[in-house]
Amino acid sequence: MSDMKSKFLEVYSVLKSELLHDTAFDFTDNSRQWVERMLDYNVTGGKLIRGLSVIDSYKLLKGEELSDDEVFLACALGWCIEWLQAYFIVIDDIMDNSDTRRDQPCWYKVPKVGLIAANDAVVLRNHIPRILKKHFKGKPYYVDLLDLFNEAEFKTACGQMIDMITTIEGEKDLAKYSMPLHHRIVRHKTAYYSFYLPVACALLMVGENPENHTDVKSILIDMGIYFQDDYLDCYGHPDVIGKIGTDIKDFKCSWLVVKAMELANEEQKKLLYENYGKDDPACIAKVKKLYNILNLQGVFEEYESKSYEKLITSIKAHPGKAMQAVLKSFLAKIYKRLK
Amino acid sequence: MSDMKSKFLEVYSVLKSELLHDTAFDFTDNSRQWVERMLDYNVTGGKLIRGLSVIDSYKLLKGEELSDDEVFLACALGWCIEWLQAYFIVIDDIMDNSDTRRDQPCWYKVPKVGLIAANDAVVLRNHIPRILKKHFKGKPYYVDLLDLFNEAEFKTACGQMIDMITTIEGEKDLAKYSMPLHHRIVRHKTAYYSFYLPVACALLMVGENPENHTDVKSILIDMGIYFQDDYLDCYGHPDVIGKIGTDIKDFKCSWLVVKAMELANEEQKKLLYENYGKDDPACIAKVKKLYNILNLQGVFEEYESKSYEKLITSIKAHPGKAMQAVLKSFLAKIYKRLK
Repeated sequence: MSDMKSKFLEVYSVLKSELLHDTAFDFTDNSRQWVERMLDYNVTGGKLIRGLSVIDSYKLLKGEELSDDEVFLACALGWCIEWLQAYFIVIDDIMDNSDTRRDQPCWYKVPKVGLIAANDAVVLRNHIPRILKKHFKGKPYYVDLLDLFNEAEFKTACGQMIDMITTIEGEKDLAKYSMPLHHRIVRHKTAYYSFYLPVACALLMVGENPENHTDVKSILIDMGIYFQDDYLDCYGHPDVIGKIGTDIKDFKCSWLVVKAMELANEEQKKLLYENYGKDDPACIAKVKKLYNILNLQGVFEEYESKSYEKLITSIKAHPGKAMQAVLKSFLAKIYKRLK
Repeated sequence: MSDMKSKFLEVYSVLKSELLHDTAFDFTDNSRQWVERMLDYNVTGGKLIRGLSVIDSYKLLKGEELSDDEVFLACALGWCIEWLQAYFIVIDDIMDNSDTRRDQPCWYKVPKVGLIAANDAVVLRNHIPRILKKHFKGKPYYVDLLDLFNEAEFKTACGQMIDMITTIEGEKDLAKYSMPLHHRIVRHKTAYYSFYLPVACALLMVGENPENHTDVKSILIDMGIYFQDDYLDCYGHPDVIGKIGTDIKDFKCSWLVVKAMELANEEQKKLLYENYGKDDPACIAKVKKLYNILNLQGVFEEYESKSYEKLITSIKAHPGKAMQAVLKSFLAKIYKRLK
């Protein structure tokens, strides 16, 4: 484990302990145990890429060694993003009726948790302003931080909404799926909080207003659009991605199905219309077989390389060397990742 | 309808329209229609007591006629509280597996909505900072407003958590139910956002820091504790309270069951142990019959009158005349209300 990652995990323990002794809530013993277990189960099991990016980005932007205090604060903001992610994952899994996540049962599937998970998600969300208030209240950028996290949550919730309402039973119609719709979903649902938010946090910490960096924002959002997880949902092995993909049976407007519709002949389109979005292994197998016939793996790889080249070109066109390093470092972390 | 209420409803239309044309989200037609229907269904159907209290309180504290602008802003904050309430109700109904609310099916029970309701709740929640940012961003108390709403949401979520985890299947034990636990739940889950929050909003609008008014806060929280809805959940007629009570079958730590345990003899306690928290009409009937034998209606009425007297005494002891008027007006709105 890198030094930074072990430092990051240390900060998790500090934040957790503060939250478990937050005097704004008159804990019962049971509720304190509940929250601790819920946090350990949902917040720490991910790859932590988003959270760690805050520290990396902050270092690169600052251009000098960080003090212990500064490292702590960057870690705290990183954890706020991980908390946000946990909040959305818990709700997402309930809505998608998923079974597993990060190699373990989804939180709402854990015995005695059930739909209490919906309120646990709300508790997770509420920890973010608790952390921000405790550690950033005096900072000149405190209010911008609140606005930023609110904005990120809003975009994610809206993306989630389009994602869900396009898949409603009885209104399933592949004809409405297109690359622009797919991009719209991913841009809101994933790109904003996963890619833009960590760098925006780092910008606030060095005293910059992220709103003045629209070029950076647009590169980061593009990164999120190009490197979505749809490919992995279908082709990633559950042992590697930590969950069983559900996009085909859930009728998701994924990159793969949109691309398949683009490339398919009339007969193949008919197959998609008849089999996509059905919770039946035979239908799912037919869709996957068609994806193979259309060579979507190859098409995706090419798309990914081209996207990478485009992003590198945009990054090199950016005037600031430090910001270039931030963006390149982010790109390196996600390009051709396994999960 | 009072002038104030029709003004308040007008402001709802304005806020809704702003949210439906919020450029921070790239709406599809479907999602715009979805949000509009979801808002109309969940935000406006209540009694609006909480929301209207902001305007009343602000007027009384200001002590002079409000400008149109000031009325609009007070209405906007009032609606933020109604939005917060809608958010919690939507999630609450999912977790309690409720059927009806405000004389209509719960939102998650509406065809084609289902568990998308969980994300709709998140969208409702996210509208609050959108409204605050749009209308209060320049105000000196903007950051305090954000903190206040965050604090209110945090307390509510924590109260909801204790409420839920005390009722988990397999751990049902009436012996752990007591008046302090009941108070702890109500204080967090209801009193803070329903009673303290509206007055705290009004205080911010007149340039005061609500944190400096701990006496007011404690009176308002007490009001929330005394005037909870547990009595109505059991005795209110569904036509009047707009929902079917579920506290007995859900094993809730309600005022009634705690009081019943206090007053019951050994045999009656045994009956409660055997029948409370079972989703069986015969068990529910036995519990209700015992409540009648113990004359809980009469005991509650006496408790309510005494609480009223205590509150009036506390209010009269408050040094500020305007604040006294605010508190009395609030109390008048909720004392012996029908629903």
